[in-house]
Amino acid sequence: MTLPTLADIQSAHLRISPFIKRTPVLTSSLLNNIFGCELFFKCENFQKVGAFKFRGATNAVLSLGQENRKMGVVTHSSGNHAAALALAARMNGIKAYIVMPENAPSVKKDAVAGYGAEITFCKPTTRAREETCKAIMESTGATLIHPYDNFMVICGQGTASLELLAEINDLDAVIAPVGGGGLISGTSTCTKGINPGIKVFGAEPLNANDAWKSFTTGILTPSVNPLTIADGLLTSLSELTFSIIRKNVDDIITVSEESIIQSMKLVWERMKIIIEPSSATVLAVVGENPELFRGKKVGLVISGGNVDLTGLLV
Amino acid sequence: MTLPTLADIQSAHLRISPFIKRTPVLTSSLLNNIFGCELFFKCENFQKVGAFKFRGATNAVLSLGQENRKMGVVTHSSGNHAAALALAARMNGIKAYIVMPENAPSVKKDAVAGYGAEITFCKPTTRAREETCKAIMESTGATLIHPYDNFMVICGQGTASLELLAEINDLDAVIAPVGGGGLISGTSTCTKGINPGIKVFGAEPLNANDAWKSFTTGILTPSVNPLTIADGLLTSLSELTFSIIRKNVDDIITVSEESIIQSMKLVWERMKIIIEPSSATVLAVVGENPELFRGKKVGLVISGGNVDLTGLLV
Repeated sequence: MTLPTLADIQSAHLRISPFIKRTPVLTSSLLNNIFGCELFFKCENFQKVGAFKFRGATNAVLSLGQENRKMGVVTHSSGNHAAALALAARMNGIKAYIVMPENAPSVKKDAVAGYGAEITFCKPTTRAREETCKAIMESTGATLIHPYDNFMVICGQGTASLELLAEINDLDAVIAPVGGGGLISGTSTCTKGINPGIKVFGAEPLNANDAWKSFTTGILTPSVNPLTIADGLLTSLSELTFSIIRKNVDDIITVSEESIIQSMKLVWERMKIIIEPSSATVLAVVGENPELFRGKKVGLVISGGNVDLTGLLV
Repeated sequence: MTLPTLADIQSAHLRISPFIKRTPVLTSSLLNNIFGCELFFKCENFQKVGAFKFRGATNAVLSLGQENRKMGVVTHSSGNHAAALALAARMNGIKAYIVMPENAPSVKKDAVAGYGAEITFCKPTTRAREETCKAIMESTGATLIHPYDNFMVICGQGTASLELLAEINDLDAVIAPVGGGGLISGTSTCTKGINPGIKVFGAEPLNANDAWKSFTTGILTPSVNPLTIADGLLTSLSELTFSIIRKNVDDIITVSEESIIQSMKLVWERMKIIIEPSSATVLAVVGENPELFRGKKVGLVISGGNVDLTGLLV
């Protein structure tokens, strides 16, 4: 299995730069006081489609050969990756087929349809979506762009921390959320490639702790019915992301639901930015482990800001 | 009555720059598409204490003479001005006395107390708060810093658009919310001073339209029981702010409650930033008057981001 390197991430960054937003790195003296360390928020909630996923999807789309471009791309996702792939494809004149569970929230269906993708609905099971994807690949020749089990996607996700470290070059630690492991794989490869002395931590909900289990036992262990407010972190690691995590990540740290919600609220209230629950896990890690970060300069990869506000605001 | 000039605002900016945040000017291609014009959001929701009020309060505090500094400052407010004055005073080693209605939300009491101000509670009537203020002034010698009926406060508020226009120098129009009129007074003085060709509009809730009434009739007409979600815009103009508005503002435009809420939701969802209802009025003006702004470059002064999230997020 070939693992990505810093050079791969740097190439990805050159490739995707004309298409992505260079998101800001925000700080808050108020939060620094509360947590007793210096926090640097790499704000991918401001990225196109509201999530880092646009980086990986764009890198995957731009890496296709001419023949494959003509036949389009396909993925199964009801979340940020679906919207990201749909937009990345459209911006490059490529057809996108998205397989979504028929019970996906209509706000998500609308978003993907709005980016011009062709949606195929299937039953909400892993088997149904994989079979539907396969059928589309066979009939159209489209290339599967997996949400995280994909070399080019991982390289794209790593570009967020490439920008973070270019801006803040003396970080002591970087924390990114762990779901399927695409973001933490890119983040850790990039960070350790630039400076092996920087600690890299994965933030995972205690209620979806497959990465923690896999990391501590050394045996890839999928999630079974994870139940967390961090709805972007329900997926399990793949062989590829697990291998990268074992090589480059210092630790996976789990956090409680209560501390995820509290951290999210704190950021909304004090920083006036909207981050999704999955992103709040990184601040929750700092909050639950003050001794680990006291006095340190800590980079936090804020993965996205897609929250369904229906019900919150009228 | 002496009205402030651009030079006064420029002086204020020099004076307060070491203390305030230079807030970003954000754009959103998505919102530009929706509204058919180019929008530039001057984000005072990222200002210290979460509102532009910190600019005016800081300018007022820094403009005190040595003797007055020793005796402190006093104001009556249950909102952003109270927190702003408390912090501005503390940062300059000055005592702040804040008069608040006894029924103010505890989150606001806590914020003001947290900035080290001495709070005096009074009955929630105009008369009670004015008498309480007066008693404090007599017993302590503290200087009253009115939330908007104050020359130095108005000059401080104008510095937000000074920064906006320095960054985007070819705006066609600037829109700011109107409550007591401090922000729109500073905004319009600054904008017309730099370029009289730039249109300046005040955004006001239809349900609190005292400024619109005063502006269209030419007679200063206070609000009677205004009822709007834009809780920062309940106050009425003063003689001073009314004079400035008559001189420098092109029009006051009222907006419905529904369109304020819709605009706020749009900004939260699409821009991933938290703005308070009062700030959403400026976007509501654009939404309700597309013909006025189509194809134009429009500056929007986003006044603050203080929203009580209790009940929204657990």
